[in-house]
Amino acid sequence: MGLGELSIRVYYQDTDSGGIVFHAAYLEFFERGRTEWLRDLGITQGELNHELGVLFVVRKVNLRYLKPAFLDDLLLVRTSVLKIGKAQITLCQKVFRDKDLLMNGIVNLGLISTDTLQPKIIPDRIRGKLILSSGSCSVKTEET
Amino acid sequence: MGLGELSIRVYYQDTDSGGIVFHAAYLEFFERGRTEWLRDLGITQGELNHELGVLFVVRKVNLRYLKPAFLDDLLLVRTSVLKIGKAQITLCQKVFRDKDLLMNGIVNLGLISTDTLQPKIIPDRIRGKLILSSGSCSVKTEET
Amino acid sequence: MGLGELSIRVYYQDTDSGGIVFHAAYLEFFERGRTEWLRDLGITQGELNHELGVLFVVRKVNLRYLKPAFLDDLLLVRTSVLKIGKAQITLCQKVFRDKDLLMNGIVNLGLISTDTLQPKIIPDRIRGKLILSSGSCSVKTEET
Amino acid sequence: MGLGELSIRVYYQDTDSGGIVFHAAYLEFFERGRTEWLRDLGITQGELNHELGVLFVVRKVNLRYLKPAFLDDLLLVRTSVLKIGKAQITLCQKVFRDKDLLMNGIVNLGLISTDTLQPKIIPDRIRGKLILSSGSCSVKTEET
Repeated sequence: MGLGELSIRVYYQDTDSGGIVFHAAYLEFFERGRTEWLRDLGITQGELNHELGVLFVVRKVNLRYLKPAFLDDLLLVRTSVLKIGKAQITLCQKVFRDKDLLMNGIVNLGLISTDTLQPKIIPDRIRGKLILSSGSCSVKTEET
Repeated sequence: MGLGELSIRVYYQDTDSGGIVFHAAYLEFFERGRTEWLRDLGITQGELNHELGVLFVVRKVNLRYLKPAFLDDLLLVRTSVLKIGKAQITLCQKVFRDKDLLMNGIVNLGLISTDTLQPKIIPDRIRGKLILSSGSCSVKTEET
Repeated sequence: MGLGELSIRVYYQDTDSGGIVFHAAYLEFFERGRTEWLRDLGITQGELNHELGVLFVVRKVNLRYLKPAFLDDLLLVRTSVLKIGKAQITLCQKVFRDKDLLMNGIVNLGLISTDTLQPKIIPDRIRGKLILSSGSCSVKTEET
Repeated sequence: MGLGELSIRVYYQDTDSGGIVFHAAYLEFFERGRTEWLRDLGITQGELNHELGVLFVVRKVNLRYLKPAFLDDLLLVRTSVLKIGKAQITLCQKVFRDKDLLMNGIVNLGLISTDTLQPKIIPDRIRGKLILSSGSCSVKTEET
């Protein structure tokens, strides 16, 4: 696995009676992908919560479901940085099955205080790690 | 409850250790809201599957998380039609707590065959019911 | 709905690609059932957490899956008290579809401190309300 | 990882606002553990469904929650065979965090037809693989 890559197996728990992966499961796959990407960068949610008193929350999500996934599929989630702001960060996250792109997402996260739930400026030591991972992420903006 | 309105109680299962409703839970609230809105219009998922051999699948989702929801909150999901195409439909769905708008979503669904998973034109008797519910839905398009 | 009764609709989110309700979904139905049963008795999770600094956690679960449930089913969850201890309570919870018993469960909950996560004796004012709801609950003990 | 061992990371999606892993999440961990254990034995759910027209469903579950798990924990799920019947199999499944046993479960599965949902005798070629994995599983039977 490269940086920002996580492989995820599809289980019954991820599917629905339509016979495909339930649409909300992809947000869970994305969360796992983001968390492991942060961990690879040396940032754990626990450290954010307990040492810095902050957590990342989802502010905006754009998802494009391109092809269905099925039980037993082995998926790959790719996470990369699209933009870093003062108190927020925008990621692009994609789900692949082999070379097939199944799902295309843009996820905007805000850093907030665990106490007040109010926005917090991303601390420099966190920001520094995030910038390191910044890379190319081709995004087609589409109208709904 | 008016047409397209569903009240939803927040349980532990909907929350995460950040102390707020988990972001993916809203997609589940939306699915419940859409299903009850369809049921109010005289359309059940079972009928779609078994009698017509079709199902609606999520093709695109845009979510804006405006304010957090908490354990025990009583939420209201509002669903209305934004656009109806040949083989797809776009809904706007919102989550309120009393007068507070917590979440703003646009959900684009495609009708597909349960067998082939290929797009299907929305049958006239379904379309007729959908049009009846068409109403105003103010949407602010925002850049990510 | 009588005391300890909650009706629950089955949505795609509750099903899996086996075409039936996913087995873990019943624990979520039970949690909703317990919470509404507590609410009917005048006890909310929020009050427990914020005013008393305690929460109920699941300690033991015995589940017997008798018949499957399906998309669009309207289920009824019934919750009643089997036993009340010093720091724990045992409930029996059942899921019906009309007269069909689909699922039979026994759920043992412990009261713990939200801070230390250590067991706490159930306060008298909570216990008083719980006893009120105590009723008959025929349970067949079965070996696995 | 040995046979029947799967490591699982805890994400926000697995936790609740009590600050610990949500009790129903363990059934999902167990399902992942069982599926990977079957895969290690050369049995995939897809093969069961598509080639043999059968699937395993959960018939009984006994869970004992011993200690809580938390965000970011790295857990180990261990799956082993307790008993094999004609049309069912009983597993014991445990969740560890390092040497700490957090959760003790017994899960009884039945094999059923995907079409009729009626019980099916476990085919010899599946049974042969299952027996191979049969091993010691100390279980304390406890009263609720």
